[in-house]
Amino acid sequence: MGIDPLIKPDTFGFIAAALTTIAFLPQVIKTWRTKKAEDVSVVMLLMFITGLLFWIVYAIQTNALPVLIANIITFILNVTILTLKLIYGKQPSSTQTSE
Amino acid sequence: MGIDPLIKPDTFGFIAAALTTIAFLPQVIKTWRTKKAEDVSVVMLLMFITGLLFWIVYAIQTNALPVLIANIITFILNVTILTLKLIYGKQPSSTQTSE
Repeated sequence: MGIDPLIKPDTFGFIAAALTTIAFLPQVIKTWRTKKAEDVSVVMLLMFITGLLFWIVYAIQTNALPVLIANIITFILNVTILTLKLIYGKQPSSTQTSE
Repeated sequence: MGIDPLIKPDTFGFIAAALTTIAFLPQVIKTWRTKKAEDVSVVMLLMFITGLLFWIVYAIQTNALPVLIANIITFILNVTILTLKLIYGKQPSSTQTSE
């Protein structure tokens, strides 16, 4: 903006992309270890995954390689969380809500 | 890429941004209703929220208003999820893991 930034905006962008991408890895590990994802909203996961598919299309059409890579990784991690949630939700011992 | 897109890339970008932003609302509602977020990883929330702060700085420095608005809303929703998780986790009836 008015003042010349000391750190390049791209640096913030790369740190931001890295953090919002790998943030889902601790959730994958937690769900895998505890074998439970009852409190994780399936509606959130479905909306987020659909949004990521749109980001992937957008990245392909605009040739935005960093956006493409970040969203493919985020997509894989969130599909993994959804898959684990559905697997563990089907086990007879747990009670599952539709939400 | 090679072929002219029938739908403008920006359209995909706006749909993508809208979905990956409002996706966290169902999680807020679910956590609020069930008063439980034990299965939601606190490490994920902290990393994601930190990443969103970097996106906000990036958006301000590059004057990217849509990126700024989307990330502020996502930030508010995720801080709400974290706050609810911490409140409900402190209640004596629930067992809490540090992860």
